[in-house]
Amino acid sequence: MYEKYIDHTNLKPDSTYEDIKKLVDEAIEYKFATVCVNPCRVKMASEMLKDTEVGVTTVIGFPLGANTIETKVFETTDAIKNGATEIDMVINIGKLREKDSDYLKEEISRIKEACKDKILKVIIETALLDEEEKILISSICIECGVDYVKTSTGFNGGGATVEDVKLIKSIVKDKCKIKASGGIRDREFMEKLIDAGADRIGASASVKLIK
Amino acid sequence: MYEKYIDHTNLKPDSTYEDIKKLVDEAIEYKFATVCVNPCRVKMASEMLKDTEVGVTTVIGFPLGANTIETKVFETTDAIKNGATEIDMVINIGKLREKDSDYLKEEISRIKEACKDKILKVIIETALLDEEEKILISSICIECGVDYVKTSTGFNGGGATVEDVKLIKSIVKDKCKIKASGGIRDREFMEKLIDAGADRIGASASVKLIK
Repeated sequence: MYEKYIDHTNLKPDSTYEDIKKLVDEAIEYKFATVCVNPCRVKMASEMLKDTEVGVTTVIGFPLGANTIETKVFETTDAIKNGATEIDMVINIGKLREKDSDYLKEEISRIKEACKDKILKVIIETALLDEEEKILISSICIECGVDYVKTSTGFNGGGATVEDVKLIKSIVKDKCKIKASGGIRDREFMEKLIDAGADRIGASASVKLIK
Repeated sequence: MYEKYIDHTNLKPDSTYEDIKKLVDEAIEYKFATVCVNPCRVKMASEMLKDTEVGVTTVIGFPLGANTIETKVFETTDAIKNGATEIDMVINIGKLREKDSDYLKEEISRIKEACKDKILKVIIETALLDEEEKILISSICIECGVDYVKTSTGFNGGGATVEDVKLIKSIVKDKCKIKASGGIRDREFMEKLIDAGADRIGASASVKLIK
């Protein structure tokens, strides 16, 4: 019953063709929502997944988010051309810490425009933010009409917490969905995150989570 | 005497304008070779550093290296347009683990072409490689005419080691220089890396290293 919540994820920098093939095969077998792979693996994953209902998520400006807006827009367009159906972008975290809302709105809006009809998830990296920053960026996500607020990259220390999902939910209500990710390795924790408001789960231990 | 060895580095995803201004001010004061900043900070750093001898290094496909070649080339061109004088790119580590030399040669050559007269350093991420892979990629770097082989991102576990610098030096000899980076926090270790063959040092504790 949880399969459709899951973006089955392998973003390791040293993953090989065989590792990604295994991920894709598992996603088909267990009917996960999508596989989540690095941009250089989108083309192979999308070719393997055509004629299935499994989508292809990829990550933009990952995991630091400190690229220029121009590069993130280019990477988004390139990923969609290669077959990505969902785009998980990392915000410019430094600009959020500077409270530069205009920069963040421009960044997210321009990537949303590049996404066209594809799903856009915005990774806010909760582990590096204080409460005020989490609230500010959640509000910006609503204003920019993004599909999901996503908690974490899993690469910058810390991951999803029930508390953060509840906080984000209290801001976005039904205007954006929530993707919880980072350190989700057992079913009980996943269920708590879903109870708190998560609509999607990013995990590499997905097969274990649904069994 | 070690100032000119150092790329004074701040690549933290949550660095603010003030953090980067401090980095730049220190680089001017201590006459470091360059500052090393994320792509979104290149423009500000290069404006602050004009009329000085301090260069601006930035990082491409950082720190996972798992972007498409197209995105890495775009990011390089964009960075140079914004004022970068040195380009530190991360290779596609998965493709190296697959021993796909053709892919790596194409990737590095196309970025070198985008660099024009700017310095190109190729980050091979030694912590994720076995000896055979380190030798293979060092040879590819020579073949592609890159300026420096760089050991590490500092983000994927592990950093520079004296052993790795010696191994790379035994392959590249005088055909490429070597940049050691990742975890270099005391002067004695820096001196050992330089003795082993390092021509440049990437560090955030740079002020401490030269005092």
